[in-house]
Amino acid sequence: MNQNNDFKCQIWFTEYHNNNVALSVRIKDILYREKSEFQEIEIVDSYDFGKVLILDNTFQTTERDEFIYHELISHIPLFTHPNPKRVLVIGGGDGGTVREVVKHDSVEVVDFVELDKKVIEACKKYMPKLSCEIENEKVNVLITDGIKYVAETENKYDVIIVDCPDPVGPAKGLFEKEFYKNIYKCLDDDGIMVQQSESPLYNLDLIQNICKYLKEAGFEIIKPYTYPMPTYPSGFWSFTLASKKHDPLETDEKKIKEKLKDIKTKYYDEEVHKGIFLATPKFLKDAVKKALE
Amino acid sequence: MNQNNDFKCQIWFTEYHNNNVALSVRIKDILYREKSEFQEIEIVDSYDFGKVLILDNTFQTTERDEFIYHELISHIPLFTHPNPKRVLVIGGGDGGTVREVVKHDSVEVVDFVELDKKVIEACKKYMPKLSCEIENEKVNVLITDGIKYVAETENKYDVIIVDCPDPVGPAKGLFEKEFYKNIYKCLDDDGIMVQQSESPLYNLDLIQNICKYLKEAGFEIIKPYTYPMPTYPSGFWSFTLASKKHDPLETDEKKIKEKLKDIKTKYYDEEVHKGIFLATPKFLKDAVKKALE
Repeated sequence: MNQNNDFKCQIWFTEYHNNNVALSVRIKDILYREKSEFQEIEIVDSYDFGKVLILDNTFQTTERDEFIYHELISHIPLFTHPNPKRVLVIGGGDGGTVREVVKHDSVEVVDFVELDKKVIEACKKYMPKLSCEIENEKVNVLITDGIKYVAETENKYDVIIVDCPDPVGPAKGLFEKEFYKNIYKCLDDDGIMVQQSESPLYNLDLIQNICKYLKEAGFEIIKPYTYPMPTYPSGFWSFTLASKKHDPLETDEKKIKEKLKDIKTKYYDEEVHKGIFLATPKFLKDAVKKALE
Repeated sequence: MNQNNDFKCQIWFTEYHNNNVALSVRIKDILYREKSEFQEIEIVDSYDFGKVLILDNTFQTTERDEFIYHELISHIPLFTHPNPKRVLVIGGGDGGTVREVVKHDSVEVVDFVELDKKVIEACKKYMPKLSCEIENEKVNVLITDGIKYVAETENKYDVIIVDCPDPVGPAKGLFEKEFYKNIYKCLDDDGIMVQQSESPLYNLDLIQNICKYLKEAGFEIIKPYTYPMPTYPSGFWSFTLASKKHDPLETDEKKIKEKLKDIKTKYYDEEVHKGIFLATPKFLKDAVKKALE
């Protein structure tokens, strides 16, 4: 194929949000497309966002903005835990989360549970900036359903990261009561979990439900945090952290700073660690408080 | 016109960013359109973002997400200053910033300088949720060029808010060296200014320039802060604060909390005040540090 990027031809990928808002990126080329057992997978090369992974017509990750998402889903829980050794990553077949997790020297084992091996294969081939650590010796790739995995495993983890897609189709169970109970069971007594929890602007009730379920599962500390995410609906996104013991607001800033000498980040630093929770918008804090009453 | 909102007809407003990314909202109706002396002004009614003010084909403000922008451009400087009495607002003809500023009891005078009176008139008629305080007795509407105003006035202010559009056309001078010197001159000895400063993802060099110019103008404390802004390019936006004396990180949280009993906010609270600066992404802190060296 002619890879000359100066074609005038306007080819766009568009994701529609609720049929009333649309985000489009102009693309240079379609690099990969396949229907797997679970979903339609596309990787395109875009003009302004680099390579883009699209699952079922939805922006999944892009080379330009992925650092925001992957640093914040990983380093917040990993620096909150004083000594994370065993980490479970559910979802995130692109490998971006795993890439950040293995940056922590304390981490000995990363069990990486992904439903769709075709996503891993495609990203290994076309998005090496994200998938570069999937072959790391600390990482065990387990091709299976994360919901089933946490229900059945007897393994215990220090940190569990749920890098899940939107709550539709097979991912729906990743937002249900039973799942959070099993996550709690799979965590050590001072374990921490983080989950991708959608847009505070569009999905406030979903975040409230997650918080309620996490409380019912037994977690002591439950805090969502927000950040800009250019290619996700509303560009305004959240993770929800749940912890049995350690509070991210009490993490020693100096210790983070010391460890960050060996870990390269672009978004996260020792101030972001605490600031991101303080900066949670009032309406979200209020909604969570109400959900946890 | 038939105001039935259930038409199947798909009418969209689209803003293109750098010709390679596009954000579109589906609209119900075009409420207003006019070419003023300075720009093309449109107000449309959209499905998911309420009424939208569009200037020269660019999202200016929407009813759904304006609270983020207007609360953060106003309350951060106004709560950083211990007793703001005289406030200058440059731009922001929709009235959203003025609406937040007059919530502060200490504020006695708001000089509201807007270049284009047609924007004020249109928003007064079609966007009363934003323009509702333009007639407030504290507010003096001055239809003139903000650049010229700060060069010529002998008035002094406690807080100056530059609620400017993108640095193109007549707004270009709002991002130039001379302007910041005049802003400095118009501020009291413990004055504070805040300016809309574009996307940290797309316009990092612009933010660096602003910081450099602010330093040259004489400001002691210069800090950008970021937040999600769904309808602006990249959904990731910034303000830059410059202060002669008061540091927002040193504001007494209890005093903010006390004052907030009388001020209704949706995004801002006493934790956001400090957290938003700490949560500034590392790459932006690094870029600013470099610019200020």
